[in-house]
Amino acid sequence: MPHRKSYFELLEPNYLFPQVKARAEAFAKSKPEVKLASFGIGDVSLPLVSSISKALEKASYEMSLSSGFKGYGPEQGYLWLREKISDEIYQNKISPDEIFISDGAKCDIARILTWLPPKTTFALQTPCYPAFNDAIHLIAGKQIQYLDCELLTACPIDIESISADVLVLVNPNNPSGHLLDKQVLQSLINQSFKNNFIILYDSAYQAFIRDENYPKSIYELEGAEEKVIEISSFSKRAGFTGLRLGWSVISKKLRYKGCENSPVDDFRRLIQTLFNGASYLSQVAGLAALSEEGLKETTIQLNTYLHRAQILAKGLKQAGMQVSGGMHSPFVWAKPLQSQLSSWQLFDYFLHELGWICTPGSGFGKKAEGFVRFSGFASQDSVDQALSQLSSFDTFNFPKEF
Amino acid sequence: MPHRKSYFELLEPNYLFPQVKARAEAFAKSKPEVKLASFGIGDVSLPLVSSISKALEKASYEMSLSSGFKGYGPEQGYLWLREKISDEIYQNKISPDEIFISDGAKCDIARILTWLPPKTTFALQTPCYPAFNDAIHLIAGKQIQYLDCELLTACPIDIESISADVLVLVNPNNPSGHLLDKQVLQSLINQSFKNNFIILYDSAYQAFIRDENYPKSIYELEGAEEKVIEISSFSKRAGFTGLRLGWSVISKKLRYKGCENSPVDDFRRLIQTLFNGASYLSQVAGLAALSEEGLKETTIQLNTYLHRAQILAKGLKQAGMQVSGGMHSPFVWAKPLQSQLSSWQLFDYFLHELGWICTPGSGFGKKAEGFVRFSGFASQDSVDQALSQLSSFDTFNFPKEF
Repeated sequence: MPHRKSYFELLEPNYLFPQVKARAEAFAKSKPEVKLASFGIGDVSLPLVSSISKALEKASYEMSLSSGFKGYGPEQGYLWLREKISDEIYQNKISPDEIFISDGAKCDIARILTWLPPKTTFALQTPCYPAFNDAIHLIAGKQIQYLDCELLTACPIDIESISADVLVLVNPNNPSGHLLDKQVLQSLINQSFKNNFIILYDSAYQAFIRDENYPKSIYELEGAEEKVIEISSFSKRAGFTGLRLGWSVISKKLRYKGCENSPVDDFRRLIQTLFNGASYLSQVAGLAALSEEGLKETTIQLNTYLHRAQILAKGLKQAGMQVSGGMHSPFVWAKPLQSQLSSWQLFDYFLHELGWICTPGSGFGKKAEGFVRFSGFASQDSVDQALSQLSSFDTFNFPKEF
Repeated sequence: MPHRKSYFELLEPNYLFPQVKARAEAFAKSKPEVKLASFGIGDVSLPLVSSISKALEKASYEMSLSSGFKGYGPEQGYLWLREKISDEIYQNKISPDEIFISDGAKCDIARILTWLPPKTTFALQTPCYPAFNDAIHLIAGKQIQYLDCELLTACPIDIESISADVLVLVNPNNPSGHLLDKQVLQSLINQSFKNNFIILYDSAYQAFIRDENYPKSIYELEGAEEKVIEISSFSKRAGFTGLRLGWSVISKKLRYKGCENSPVDDFRRLIQTLFNGASYLSQVAGLAALSEEGLKETTIQLNTYLHRAQILAKGLKQAGMQVSGGMHSPFVWAKPLQSQLSSWQLFDYFLHELGWICTPGSGFGKKAEGFVRFSGFASQDSVDQALSQLSSFDTFNFPKEF
């Protein structure tokens, strides 16, 4: 074989979430009598809503008929799904030929990294969804500027200091659950013109935004089409973590530095070569999720998750934790006021003492040491267990180490 | 945005198959009265067999139940599918933890390119499935040694001259339909030890091999586990071009140059970061395809395609074409003895004069100029039309140009 990429040396043997899963499974095996409450890897827990599973059953049957069988679809995704996204998510401000259906955000991160030149530099929030750091820095070997941020919100503090080609922005943020408002977003876009960067905007949790004062889509903001590449997903919006469906927006208004060629045409060419489209069945399911009935049903699920996050946040706060999130996001990001424990120590403490599986905050950036993330995607059972345990003490009483 | 990758300059605006599709659609629009026979983009035409669609219907319904819902699966793929592939395809010579379930071969080509270091060099057959050249040379910007090959078979002539890190081998070959025998394969593996390269082995058409004298899997050959990375797919085996499912084998016996780390562990880590697994439904369908009933049903379909390819090959040969393939492959690779036309001219000639949609051979490598590829995945209607048109003349009478 060729040599090993030198920067692989810095990779932990496992990605964050498989690490969490492995540690929780080992504990469950050693202590089968402990009742676990899982707030861990951020996976959804409610089953597919009826309108989506019915559409899948119908399409599955039709795939066995000559008249209904579908082979290769358009690499960019079926037009009917792109039109629906254009209409439902972007109020037709983004056109269907600027929308690229994917099999999920992680895969599009990889394709975007393949598309951009090797020397592209990136700026990253802390805390931030860890696939970005791992993919950009440790797998692709590209340089990263770690921005100075409010650790409780992931809001960048000194945006004038951004000196990279691409700013990665996750909004609503994962893990902090914080939602940047219109003013902050507009100032970031304005800064992108001044400092000459683009924004890679991860809106996977967009469907949890409930406040009309926040923009429904980043493209409502002035200049966004020239400066923003959006990555989004059906995973959390409609429970598609097992079905694999997402999309990216590459606007026709984007321009390369020093070259008149159209980035959207290049990205389309890359997709034709390195991807063969998302599964037809997943695309059918995506259309059902954006239908009137699908939106009605999935909104009920999203509200359930939001409610669970809210009561979790409240309980954790009352027990003496600094807390953000749980408002426009399923995530609750927390740091115990009284604890000196590292994130992984806290993880172990909660697991061993209370049977809780959360996610260690340091996995979202070294600066976030001491934080942990809880997810409102947890089952009602898990939430009930945690609330009942929380009610038995006023404030956490953390050991010095664990 | 950052700069444009300089080597994008050399990319045709569209990948080969969308080019074919666009030209055929433009013709169909301008001459709606012409009856078309499609042998073009290599897509399957028969619907999913009943055992597969029934498994999909059942799983679709179960996804709406709390007890049957599946969220994130293992990034590497469900163990039950990896075990089935290990057993059915590799007679347990390859273990489940060396098998990585993917959403198709193209996507795994991209991930393997991301995994290998930037300076990795490649050697390529001509003719060869064009995603390799486009992905390696034009999108990733890596160097390629184009091997001297028999153009009718794609069999490399001077294997001692291979001086790259990775030899790409498609067997049965796409487009030539030629199947390399055990002796040639063993000599290539032996050479890989001498010249210090690995083999990236694309076996997407493996299920079409009908002759017991040919190895069922490359890993039956001596030394293969130390030297071969296999990419394979359910697309053609079971009609999954719309469902998106494949797999790759990264053996534990592979070793990096000058480093003791395990490549399979690195690849698993990369998959965890850049991929979230193939769709659960597609994996359920894959298991059904490898069940006793699924294998019985899909074998009938594969035999149908093979029969269509065989009678097409016979008809084209009788009409004065040099022909290979159609024996262990759905493809017929052909060059008219009497023609001076380029591949795209031949494509246009067949389209305009006979209503045939084939694929221009030059798309599989510049040296293959003058060839065209026909596919036995065509519908029976298309095959019947072509055979009837072929019977009306003894030999093709090609113009000097078209």
